[in-house]
Amino acid sequence: MLKFPETIEIIEVCPRDGFQNIKTPIPTAIKIEVIDKLVDCGFRWIEATSFVHPKAIPQMADAAEVLQIVKEKHGGRVGFIALAPNLYGAQRAIEAGADAITYVVSASEKHNLENTRQTVEQSLAAFTEVCKIKGNRKVRFALATAFDCPFAGPMNPEQVIKLVEAGLAAGADEVMLADTIGTATPLQMENLLKPLAVKYPNISFILHIHDTQGMGLANIVTAMNLGITRFESAAFGLGGCPFAPGAAGNIATEDLVNMMHKMGIKTGLDYDKIIRVARYIEDKLGIAPVGHMARLASCAL
Amino acid sequence: MLKFPETIEIIEVCPRDGFQNIKTPIPTAIKIEVIDKLVDCGFRWIEATSFVHPKAIPQMADAAEVLQIVKEKHGGRVGFIALAPNLYGAQRAIEAGADAITYVVSASEKHNLENTRQTVEQSLAAFTEVCKIKGNRKVRFALATAFDCPFAGPMNPEQVIKLVEAGLAAGADEVMLADTIGTATPLQMENLLKPLAVKYPNISFILHIHDTQGMGLANIVTAMNLGITRFESAAFGLGGCPFAPGAAGNIATEDLVNMMHKMGIKTGLDYDKIIRVARYIEDKLGIAPVGHMARLASCAL
Repeated sequence: MLKFPETIEIIEVCPRDGFQNIKTPIPTAIKIEVIDKLVDCGFRWIEATSFVHPKAIPQMADAAEVLQIVKEKHGGRVGFIALAPNLYGAQRAIEAGADAITYVVSASEKHNLENTRQTVEQSLAAFTEVCKIKGNRKVRFALATAFDCPFAGPMNPEQVIKLVEAGLAAGADEVMLADTIGTATPLQMENLLKPLAVKYPNISFILHIHDTQGMGLANIVTAMNLGITRFESAAFGLGGCPFAPGAAGNIATEDLVNMMHKMGIKTGLDYDKIIRVARYIEDKLGIAPVGHMARLASCAL
Repeated sequence: MLKFPETIEIIEVCPRDGFQNIKTPIPTAIKIEVIDKLVDCGFRWIEATSFVHPKAIPQMADAAEVLQIVKEKHGGRVGFIALAPNLYGAQRAIEAGADAITYVVSASEKHNLENTRQTVEQSLAAFTEVCKIKGNRKVRFALATAFDCPFAGPMNPEQVIKLVEAGLAAGADEVMLADTIGTATPLQMENLLKPLAVKYPNISFILHIHDTQGMGLANIVTAMNLGITRFESAAFGLGGCPFAPGAAGNIATEDLVNMMHKMGIKTGLDYDKIIRVARYIEDKLGIAPVGHMARLASCAL
């Protein structure tokens, strides 16, 4: 029999991973409204924004403003995570008051260059600096393309594990593994997560899943069986990677929560409210729903 | 670790389950063309049509004609399955030369009444008659709503197992279990498939999966872990149930094959040709792709 946990934790990344892939500028007020609604759904951690260069991702140019406003409104009750691809981004995130930093490094050298304009070695060196200035906030070492790279193909799990080692040695509080382009299979999940679970029995890895090829929930079920209980997803199934051709949306939070609740696995979240967030995004941004449950909810109108 | 098989068998049901849900009449010649193309993909079993009352499902009014033509063209190389919801349908399927019959009974009394206008008891009695006249062709006992019913909710696995017993006692050669509305979870898969595997270690159950809520591949991964190696899917992700509100498409064959091949699991099928069938259906019927891989292929144009 498969091993299912009693409870999982879902980290909502729509305001960062979801919005960064939308070309039309989203007014800051709408971003705040979405985050307000997400807070009301019951999330304890929300990835609110990304401190990237505004020329690289103009949509995230209001990162500091978004973070400051939501911290003022909900700080203390909810933790707000900011993504940073380099030391400067992490410094800005800290100044703006991020409760946690997702520092992203790609397992693939080529993707890291495209995504951060640094070599993996440079990214790791900068991460060591980030860990020195982090203060009492958590820093997550986030490995993009941990399974597949759009340029280099499947990653070697042994090399990915070496990067996890390097991240932990540098001072990471947490480690996140991302199927950035949503092409990894349950077998690839096992081939990476099983040796990691053996090597690091006390580390609670976070899995960031995209649903490009429909394997999102299959991968999550596989990961749960290997002891993973923390997942990142995005309301409405928005998301992708501006520097990873072929990537589609994150696993939709409502799809994930639907499956979990039906299986009696607690998330602490209000499913109906998440569907209402999806509906709000649909109305305000005029985008067709990506995830399964939001599409069904949309059809039902 | 999860148990993955070396090989799985995929039974293609698009010409029956896919087409029966399309309201606009599909010319017989297009149905034949789709089946020709599916044969070329490498399927050994194709569910070609359904012998239902033409008033109930007008799209299947050409059942005998479709079956006779594809038998003439491909008989011997490929087995053609016909669905029948009652004794009369089975008789017509046999006359028309079906190589196998999928005789459908719902686990849910209410759904069986809606779907076949018979009680489950009447359906079972008629199935006994079907087994007497089947000759040397295989008869599959197909349990619709084996996990969830759109009217009655979740089914009790113990009662479903009793129906499996009854079907086998009546003379079924094979048993198929259907998540008719695509709402079952991996936990429900385990709760039914695990005791069935223990009780019937020598029976190779067939699983018929819909992907309404995005759990299709998660359910298939779970089922493989319990020893299931035979799955029904529909090219392009078409399908549903005309008498089950809320049901969406079957798991798309191309989504299933993509995952299997990436995991090194053999299907004997040509993925690129399946995508071309999906493209043909898209062009000829003017329907937007349902499955993940066909949507991606469509975007890539």
